[in-house]
Amino acid sequence: MPLNQQVLLDNRPEGEAVESNFRLVQTETPALSKGQVLVRHHYLSLDPYMRGRMNDSKSYAEPQPLGEVMIGGTVGEVVESQHPKYTPGDKVVGMGGWQEYSVVDGDVPGALRRVDTTHVPLSHYLGAVGMPGVTAWYGLVKIIAPKAGETVVVSAATGAVGSAFAALAKARGCRVVGIAGGPEKCSYATAELGFDACIDYRAHPDVKTMSKALKEACPNGIDGYFENVGGYILDAVLLRTNAFARLALCGMIAGYDGQPLPMANPALILINRLKLEGFIVSEHMEVWGEALAELGGLVAAGKLRPRESIAQGLASAPSAFLGLLKGKNFGKQLVKVI
Amino acid sequence: MPLNQQVLLDNRPEGEAVESNFRLVQTETPALSKGQVLVRHHYLSLDPYMRGRMNDSKSYAEPQPLGEVMIGGTVGEVVESQHPKYTPGDKVVGMGGWQEYSVVDGDVPGALRRVDTTHVPLSHYLGAVGMPGVTAWYGLVKIIAPKAGETVVVSAATGAVGSAFAALAKARGCRVVGIAGGPEKCSYATAELGFDACIDYRAHPDVKTMSKALKEACPNGIDGYFENVGGYILDAVLLRTNAFARLALCGMIAGYDGQPLPMANPALILINRLKLEGFIVSEHMEVWGEALAELGGLVAAGKLRPRESIAQGLASAPSAFLGLLKGKNFGKQLVKVI
Repeated sequence: MPLNQQVLLDNRPEGEAVESNFRLVQTETPALSKGQVLVRHHYLSLDPYMRGRMNDSKSYAEPQPLGEVMIGGTVGEVVESQHPKYTPGDKVVGMGGWQEYSVVDGDVPGALRRVDTTHVPLSHYLGAVGMPGVTAWYGLVKIIAPKAGETVVVSAATGAVGSAFAALAKARGCRVVGIAGGPEKCSYATAELGFDACIDYRAHPDVKTMSKALKEACPNGIDGYFENVGGYILDAVLLRTNAFARLALCGMIAGYDGQPLPMANPALILINRLKLEGFIVSEHMEVWGEALAELGGLVAAGKLRPRESIAQGLASAPSAFLGLLKGKNFGKQLVKVI
Repeated sequence: MPLNQQVLLDNRPEGEAVESNFRLVQTETPALSKGQVLVRHHYLSLDPYMRGRMNDSKSYAEPQPLGEVMIGGTVGEVVESQHPKYTPGDKVVGMGGWQEYSVVDGDVPGALRRVDTTHVPLSHYLGAVGMPGVTAWYGLVKIIAPKAGETVVVSAATGAVGSAFAALAKARGCRVVGIAGGPEKCSYATAELGFDACIDYRAHPDVKTMSKALKEACPNGIDGYFENVGGYILDAVLLRTNAFARLALCGMIAGYDGQPLPMANPALILINRLKLEGFIVSEHMEVWGEALAELGGLVAAGKLRPRESIAQGLASAPSAFLGLLKGKNFGKQLVKVI
């Protein structure tokens, strides 16, 4: 049985998450029972939602239990199978967690999904053609539902969700404005990801300057907003919304570390007759087929060329994750496990 | 030509609105041109939205111009007509404003609506079977869209919107919980208006105590909320929402006088996958027919017996209006003009 490096949640953050919240251990992979599959992970996905799970507070999901392998999406290869549906060599997507190998019950619906790497690189199934891509698709198509010519805005623009959002919104004839951290990311957003404009939040660190920058980048106002961040950026966006704008709330990364961040002026929801909707893409499995088909098509056609930030080796996962929370990644943050 | 008492907006409030913001004047009603109708008002409606119009800030509607008659809904009787569609004696609803008479162009669509007072008292067309009733209907039916057995909550429970909301929600098999100011209003809500429970916000003046009271009154959580107030009550409601709850935002009376009131923890919108939607009923004229039919039926059947708070004489309108903003009214606030 191969040895299996794993990262466990050792203790919960007090305020900001730190590396010592995690613990690296090594175990042996167990022998397979009937119906089980052994998957060797090639890539682990790091995502902001994981920070929420580290807290011991009520959220939409149970907290990550202490002393267990951190949860996370993975892509890899079947190396051993006691299930008739899977054969060694199959490329699969799953929720294998922060470890090198996982043992999966092949009969659990949705636990593993076989994928085709002919036109789409394996790692993209954790990003543009995976959960983040479907997240962008759901927020744009099902909540914002833009008409051609409308202006839509997304925060964390160069991340996996943001870059998929841009390609999907351009395909629908929208003006797409991103918000990202630093001039390099902003140039990349407009030069490579199809954004019509991108605002550097580091150069606009408060509601007033951000609101002014949004006014310039969105001369016709904002009709749709995809929220990955929260905090003052949301306040600034609210000030620039058109009547009947729709806001898809998917991440509130800015508030994960401590006290909840308030919304300064919720009366704008009434004044501008806004619709705000929070969602979690895993609760909308019915759209995955349609969304993945469109996203795969955009990647295959070269219209969605997502950037990846790849950390090497499982031991680097904690520091890469903490960097992600601070916006240090550039594109979809992955860990190459193999 | 009869003399016409009018209340004008004389100057804008600085902070809290005061009586000296208004000015009472007397003019002569002009001679009618062809197509015009002279309406003698019986009742003037006082509504929280008027406070927003007194400010000189961007909102969904233009500010009330200074030196002009305050806008407002009215019911009355046609006393003179130069329009073939209207005959003296017709009972009509319109937007006649804070004055005894109004001259109306009979050709403007929606400017006047003839009403039948056989089963519904004239004054109710400003309340339960008028704009406030339709407001309750739209928020409940089109935004909250409750299933039987769900729990819905409304603030300003004994007002015109709240009492209509209760009757409409009971007709749909919901548990209906109100929030109102003082034990007298709360007893009335449960004894007369059909509420299953009513919370006195004066006895629960902060998020913590209000949230606890909501937990007791809503043992299965909150599935729908109709917001007339804003401020800490909204924060407390958010803490008690079930997953996928819907919030119709119709009034934010708590924030009209000064600084915007923040929402303490907007991340709950994501955590509980909430939908919040702001609306103004005048933008949804397509539902008025259906809504008024249901509301008129509930009144005629005795299932909706709205209470009215009637101030006597046009000169009392400013003080009655300021009382409304402080929750001093008990039921729909009207001014009897005749």
